Amino acid sequence: MKPLAATIASLVLIASPSIRAEQPKQTLDEIRRVAPGLEKYTTGRLFGEVWKRPGLAPRDRSLITVAALIAMYRTDQLPGHLERALNNGVTREEIGEIITHLAFYAGWPAAMTAGTIARRIFDGRKP
Amino acid sequence: MKPLAATIASLVLIASPSIRAEQPKQTLDEIRRVAPGLEKYTTGRLFGEVWKRPGLAPRDRSLITVAALIAMYRTDQLPGHLERALNNGVTREEIGEIITHLAFYAGWPAAMTAGTIARRIFDGRKP
Amino acid sequence: MKPLAATIASLVLIASPSIRAEQPKQTLDEIRRVAPGLEKYTTGRLFGEVWKRPGLAPRDRSLITVAALIAMYRTDQLPGHLERALNNGVTREEIGEIITHLAFYAGWPAAMTAGTIARRIFDGRKP
Amino acid sequence: MKPLAATIASLVLIASPSIRAEQPKQTLDEIRRVAPGLEKYTTGRLFGEVWKRPGLAPRDRSLITVAALIAMYRTDQLPGHLERALNNGVTREEIGEIITHLAFYAGWPAAMTAGTIARRIFDGRKP
Amino acid sequence: MKPLAATIASLVLIASPSIRAEQPKQTLDEIRRVAPGLEKYTTGRLFGEVWKRPGLAPRDRSLITVAALIAMYRTDQLPGHLERALNNGVTREEIGEIITHLAFYAGWPAAMTAGTIARRIFDGRKP
Amino acid sequence: MKPLAATIASLVLIASPSIRAEQPKQTLDEIRRVAPGLEKYTTGRLFGEVWKRPGLAPRDRSLITVAALIAMYRTDQLPGHLERALNNGVTREEIGEIITHLAFYAGWPAAMTAGTIARRIFDGRKP
Repeated sequence: MKPLAATIASLVLIASPSIRAEQPKQTLDEIRRVAPGLEKYTTGRLFGEVWKRPGLAPRDRSLITVAALIAMYRTDQLPGHLERALNNGVTREEIGEIITHLAFYAGWPAAMTAGTIARRIFDGRKP
Repeated sequence: MKPLAATIASLVLIASPSIRAEQPKQTLDEIRRVAPGLEKYTTGRLFGEVWKRPGLAPRDRSLITVAALIAMYRTDQLPGHLERALNNGVTREEIGEIITHLAFYAGWPAAMTAGTIARRIFDGRKP
Repeated sequence: MKPLAATIASLVLIASPSIRAEQPKQTLDEIRRVAPGLEKYTTGRLFGEVWKRPGLAPRDRSLITVAALIAMYRTDQLPGHLERALNNGVTREEIGEIITHLAFYAGWPAAMTAGTIARRIFDGRKP
Repeated sequence: MKPLAATIASLVLIASPSIRAEQPKQTLDEIRRVAPGLEKYTTGRLFGEVWKRPGLAPRDRSLITVAALIAMYRTDQLPGHLERALNNGVTREEIGEIITHLAFYAGWPAAMTAGTIARRIFDGRKP
Repeated sequence: MKPLAATIASLVLIASPSIRAEQPKQTLDEIRRVAPGLEKYTTGRLFGEVWKRPGLAPRDRSLITVAALIAMYRTDQLPGHLERALNNGVTREEIGEIITHLAFYAGWPAAMTAGTIARRIFDGRKP
Repeated sequence: MKPLAATIASLVLIASPSIRAEQPKQTLDEIRRVAPGLEKYTTGRLFGEVWKRPGLAPRDRSLITVAALIAMYRTDQLPGHLERALNNGVTREEIGEIITHLAFYAGWPAAMTAGTIARRIFDGRKP
C-alpha cells in the first residue's frame, strides 16, 4: 500500500495549482488554445523583449518579479519564478530573506504561503 | 493500475477549490449551513434582483463579473461565472480576448491563471 | 482674489491623483521621461494593438477595463477610462448599473469610490 | 489672511478623497445621482438591515469593517468607518492596537496609512 | 475500494493548501528551513508579543485577523485563524455573521470562499 | 505673493497623501501618537533590525520593497521608498525599467501611477 500512497501523493502534487506553473511550456500550450493573443504577447514581448532589455540585470528582474508575486499572493505563478530566480543567481538564502523582509511589507499571510511554496521548490531541486 | 490513477485524478479535481465552485447549488447549501444570512442575500438580492435589473444586459453583467474576478484573482468563483458567461452569450473566443486584454490591466499572473481555468471549463463542456 | 483662487484650485488639482489621469496625453509625456519603455509599450502595443484587436468590440473592452479598475481600486486610472467608456458607447445609466453590480462582487468601498469619481466625470462633461 | 487660509483649507479638503467620505450623507446624495440602485441597497440593505442583524454586536461589526478597510487599503471609506467605530464603543487606544496588529497581517504600508488617517480623525473630534 | 477512496480523499485534503495551515507547528518548521528570520519574528514578536499586548482583547484580535484574511482572500491562512477564533471565544454563529457582513465590504467572492472554508473547519471539529 | 504661494503649496502637500510619506520622520511622529506599538516595531524591528540583516544587500531590499509597493498600489508609501532606493544605489534609469517590467506583472494602472510618482520624486531631487 505504501507505493500506492506515494503515487497518490505525487498525483495530488501534480494537480495542485501552485505546481502546475512550474512547467511553463505546458502552461503556454494551454494558454495558446484559449487566448492565442496572450500567448503571442507572452512569447514575443514579455519573454522575448522585456526580460532582455538592457536597463536592468536579469537577477534584478527576478528579484522584483518574485517580490511582486509574493506581495500580490499570486500563488500559481510563484513556483516558476522562484525556479527562474534561482537560475538567475538569486540564492536560496536570499529568497529566505526576501520572504522575511516582505512579511513586513505585504503581511505575514503572503510571506507564510511564499515560504511553504519556496520549501517545495527547494526540495524539488535537491540532487 | 490505470483506472485507479484515473479515479485518483478525478478525485483530486473534485477536491480542487476552483472546480467546486462550478456547482453553485452545492456551494449555496454549504453557505446556508454556515452563514444563513449570506445565502439569503445571495438568493434573494444578488441573483434574485441585481442580475435581473433592466439597466444592463445579462451579457454585459457577465463581462464585468468575469473581468472583476480575473482582476481580483478570485479563482474559486471564476469557473462558475465563466460557465454563466458562456450561457449569457459570451463566446469562447471573446473570453480568450478578455483574458488577453486584462493581462495588460490586471497583470500577467492573473491572466495566466484565468487562461488555465478557462481551458478546463471549455474542455469540460465539450460533447 | 479670483486669480489666486484659480491658482489654488490648479495646485489642488495637480496634487489630486484622481484628476491627473483625466489627461492621458500629459500622463504619457510624464511616463516617457521616467520609463520610456513603458511609454513605448503603451502607445505601440496596448493602445496601438490590443484595443484594436477584432476579437472583442471596443464597448466590451471598455466594460471589462472599467470593471477591472473599479474592482482593483485603481482610482488614478478610472477617470480616463470612464471617459473612454462613454466615448465607446457605454451610457451613464449603464455605468451606474456597473457600479451597483460590482458593489456585490468587489465590495461596497470600491463601488462607493467609483460612484464619486463617476459623478465628477459626468459633471465635467456637462455642457 | 485668516479667511483666505480657510478658503484654501476647504478647497484642499474638497479635493482630498479621504476627507470626502467623512460626510456619508453627502456621499449618498452623490451616489444616488450616479447609481440609484447602489444608493437603494446601501440605505435599504447594508445600513437598514445588515448592520442591525442581531447575530453580531455593532462594536464587533465596526471592528471587522475597519479591519477589512485597512487590509484592503480602501482609504476613502476608512475615515467614515473610524468615526462609526468610535461611536460604536471602540476606543482610540483600541484603534491604535488594531492598526499595530494589522501591520503584521496586512503589511506596514496599509497600517502606516491607517495611522495617518486615524490621527486626522482623532484630531477632528477634539473639543 | 471504499476504504482506499477514503484514504485518497483524506490525502487530497492534506495536500490542499487551505488545510495545511491548520497545523501551525508544521508550517513553522517548514518556514524555519526556508526563512529562519521569518520564523524568529513569528514566534518571538507576532505570537510572543503582539497577540499578548494588553490594549486589545484576544477575541477582538481574532475578529480583526479573520476579517483581514477574508478581505484579502488569504485562503491558506484562514483555516488556522478560524480555529484560533473559535478558541478565543468567537462562536460559529458569529463567524457566519462576519462572513455575511464582509460579503458587502470585501465582495461576494471573498465571502463565499470563506464560507466554504468555515464549513470545513466546523465539520472537522465535530465530535 | 511668494510666501502665500508657499503656504498654499505646503497646505496642498500636507493634504496630498502621496507626498506626506516623503517625510518619514513626521509620519513616525504621527504614528506614535495614534499607535505607539506600531511606532516601536517600525523603529526597533523593521528599520532597526530587518533592513540591516546581512542576508540581503540594502539595494536588493530597496528593489523588492519598491516592487511590492508598486504591485500593491500603496501610493502613500512609494515616494519615501523611491527616495530610499535612490540612496541605496538604484539609479533613475533602473527605476524606470522596474516600472516598465512591473506593468506586465502588476498591470498597467499600477505602473502608470508609479511612473507619475517617480517623476515627481525625480523632479524634487533636481539641483
